[in-house]
Amino acid sequence: MSNQQLDQLREELDQINLEILKLINKRGELVKETAYAKENHGADKKYDPVRERDMLERIKKNNNGPFQDATIIHLFKEIFKAGLELQEKDHSKELLV
Amino acid sequence: MSNQQLDQLREELDQINLEILKLINKRGELVKETAYAKENHGADKKYDPVRERDMLERIKKNNNGPFQDATIIHLFKEIFKAGLELQEKDHSKELLV
Repeated sequence: MSNQQLDQLREELDQINLEILKLINKRGELVKETAYAKENHGADKKYDPVRERDMLERIKKNNNGPFQDATIIHLFKEIFKAGLELQEKDHSKELLV
Repeated sequence: MSNQQLDQLREELDQINLEILKLINKRGELVKETAYAKENHGADKKYDPVRERDMLERIKKNNNGPFQDATIIHLFKEIFKAGLELQEKDHSKELLV
């Protein structure tokens, strides 16, 4: 394995980081849209533990590694938490208008 | 916003979850390859703070929201940590062989 090959792997890692970044932000936009949809629909509850459990189940079922289920679940719970915070921040901005 | 539209948004969220899952696992494979490459190259150090800082800088520079930089950095640090644990686990498996 040459230095060049190592550089190549690092470049691939940088690339995949940016792809993950793009998807996480795209997910953030979807979470915001969903929150608006729920509000307009008369449902003001942002955190839905049943829906979260369903999402995690689907994720676990599709996990082919190398990360173990527990690690993947931990990462997604952090992603979900960030989404909830985004909704709260968004809501508090509205209240200031 | 109808129930149907809400269901559509949820489907999109499920889809994007699976895309993120796929990329996180693909990243895990790349991290393992990089670790082997470094070992073969005589570098046994897995954790490289300079490289981590560089990756985070690149990620921050490409962050267009809606998530704030601090949130994105937090999520990626968790993803990096999972990658390091994967290497350690991989290494301890080797020692058992």
